[in-house]
Amino acid sequence: MTDHFTFTVAATDGPARTGEIRMPRGVIRTPAFMPVGTAGTVKAMYPEQVKALGADVVLGNTYHLMLRPGAERVARLGGLHTMMQWPYPILTDSGGFQVMSLSGLRKLDETGVRFQSHLDGSTHLLSPERSIEIQGLLGSDIQMQLDECVRLPAPESAIESAMRLSLRWAERCRIAFGDQPGKAMFGIVQGGDIPALRVESARALVDLDLKGYAVGGLAVGEPQATMLAMIETVEPHLPTHKPRYLMGVGTPDDIVQAVSRGIDMFDCVMPTRAGRHGMVYTRHGRLNLRNARFAEDNTPLDPESTCPAANLYSKAYLHHLVRAGEILGMMLLTWNNLSYYQDLMAGLRKAIAEGRLQDFIGETREGWRKAERDRAA
Amino acid sequence: MTDHFTFTVAATDGPARTGEIRMPRGVIRTPAFMPVGTAGTVKAMYPEQVKALGADVVLGNTYHLMLRPGAERVARLGGLHTMMQWPYPILTDSGGFQVMSLSGLRKLDETGVRFQSHLDGSTHLLSPERSIEIQGLLGSDIQMQLDECVRLPAPESAIESAMRLSLRWAERCRIAFGDQPGKAMFGIVQGGDIPALRVESARALVDLDLKGYAVGGLAVGEPQATMLAMIETVEPHLPTHKPRYLMGVGTPDDIVQAVSRGIDMFDCVMPTRAGRHGMVYTRHGRLNLRNARFAEDNTPLDPESTCPAANLYSKAYLHHLVRAGEILGMMLLTWNNLSYYQDLMAGLRKAIAEGRLQDFIGETREGWRKAERDRAA
Repeated sequence: MTDHFTFTVAATDGPARTGEIRMPRGVIRTPAFMPVGTAGTVKAMYPEQVKALGADVVLGNTYHLMLRPGAERVARLGGLHTMMQWPYPILTDSGGFQVMSLSGLRKLDETGVRFQSHLDGSTHLLSPERSIEIQGLLGSDIQMQLDECVRLPAPESAIESAMRLSLRWAERCRIAFGDQPGKAMFGIVQGGDIPALRVESARALVDLDLKGYAVGGLAVGEPQATMLAMIETVEPHLPTHKPRYLMGVGTPDDIVQAVSRGIDMFDCVMPTRAGRHGMVYTRHGRLNLRNARFAEDNTPLDPESTCPAANLYSKAYLHHLVRAGEILGMMLLTWNNLSYYQDLMAGLRKAIAEGRLQDFIGETREGWRKAERDRAA
Repeated sequence: MTDHFTFTVAATDGPARTGEIRMPRGVIRTPAFMPVGTAGTVKAMYPEQVKALGADVVLGNTYHLMLRPGAERVARLGGLHTMMQWPYPILTDSGGFQVMSLSGLRKLDETGVRFQSHLDGSTHLLSPERSIEIQGLLGSDIQMQLDECVRLPAPESAIESAMRLSLRWAERCRIAFGDQPGKAMFGIVQGGDIPALRVESARALVDLDLKGYAVGGLAVGEPQATMLAMIETVEPHLPTHKPRYLMGVGTPDDIVQAVSRGIDMFDCVMPTRAGRHGMVYTRHGRLNLRNARFAEDNTPLDPESTCPAANLYSKAYLHHLVRAGEILGMMLLTWNNLSYYQDLMAGLRKAIAEGRLQDFIGETREGWRKAERDRAA
């Protein structure tokens, strides 16, 4: 283990890379998928299960945790790692995105964003400095700058002003974060769907010499092609020796496409949220287990998986649990989905190391399509 | 393993006994607590966790399973053991109790009980023969006769006629069950809170030479003293070489008291249901984790427990999970509660084997009281 935060690329295949982020709390193998542990728990999973699936890092949401149980309280309880019994790396977002999507009355200015809690209506200020302070109280290993994220489509003027505000906030966050050798603060490239703004944002952030760079403001309503085009626009301007994180993405296909364009890290609620709503991700595509066609399907989701949720229980039983609203249904589907995502990441890492990423992607997508053809037949 | 259903008493301590029920699917160590797996799942628990806690048998509810996914469907899926991945013994109730408490319009006569599903309003008949047929389709190892259970207090005439109807149904169930060497059908002693009726019921059932006897119609609104008095009334009339099952009971104290009066088997939703509502059972009594006094209590529920839910996570974290409505909270509290119940049963078995049951009970109750005094102080 290292006392410092380091990133090494072990192999590349086109723009895609595989490597390791090392820090005192552990090693993150990249490309990495980070399960989302919103309120201090990856929903419906024991933390040791999350680790056993191959997840090296989980994401915590600053917005949720600052409101409940409260950042100062988490600190008094020994920090988020101790509280949730996850001793491995934790990345926290800045809270900004959820303020925009979840909170009530809010007012954004140069200072930061003032908002009302969706839980009890109490008023809070999230400034760049307070966001970094909260992430520090939580004990986060990888902290994110506060940014303003604009939902697409949006007028160019709104995208541009949000990008410039985000840049000014990046500088304030960098100063607030200071020098923490075993930890990192990442900047977030904004600029919506406007290539010139994306390039300007990336260059300015690189000048700040941060430890990693996220691409933000994507997967917010735009087509996949736009998202991929923005990654292609930004990628050449990011240093090769620092990790790149595509925030809030995405479907298995989004991930595969973004990895092949040079992204190292992902987070998304999709596998966990879908699992609580009867949806499963498998090598054979996405299935809705509520569907009556599974009522007497006595086959497991994937006999070749090493995850019991995928190889042990029949689809008929899972269908029954989902229909009956049983908690075990959510537990098993979430487990299967995170297992599938982690297996996909392991497959991507191996394929990059072996220089056969495009073949792997072709085979993977063929698997998804095969099931669709079987269902249509 | 045995091909037959057998019960052997290894040691006694007063009326209390410890022993083993053996059958092809496994051994049930008695006194035994059976976690309730209502709809084919012990809610919020993986089946391997339930077994690891020391549960040798779980209970399935005929009423729930006949309505969803349906008994014939469960049979086509290989039976309940295969469907829910619980290869160990399963006891099923007759469905009668839930018909009375959950279903809509119902009509009870000599034939059985006609009722409407609480799920979709469809009409069903549960007769003694159909109940045994359904329990057979589920693959149940220990099946229960259909009975009529009267909520107390009730007029003597109602209690008496329900007891006599239950006796006639016991005979019909015995004939329907026939001779199944590796399985058992238990009769149910009824008679409400009227000793003479209880004795008459017990004697008549013993004449039927069934493989085990339940005491039913208790924990349905009467004081604990009444329940214990009825156990004391019935116990001398039950054969010592057959298992005795107190249905739907109860709190840890109910169980301790009933074991010392000669009961071998218990089932109750209390530990699982309480776990989904923020309540925990511990050596130090019952706690409501929603209570604000746990918000910064960084101690675990029980550092001496072998269950991670009890020894690993802080009460403050569990409090947070309960307040936030997180599924993991229900998972951990249920796990803790079933662990506590199984540890209590193991303690009772050991104490009986060592001839120190009353000492064990005294120490156990002192533990519960100590915490109450601490809280009051």
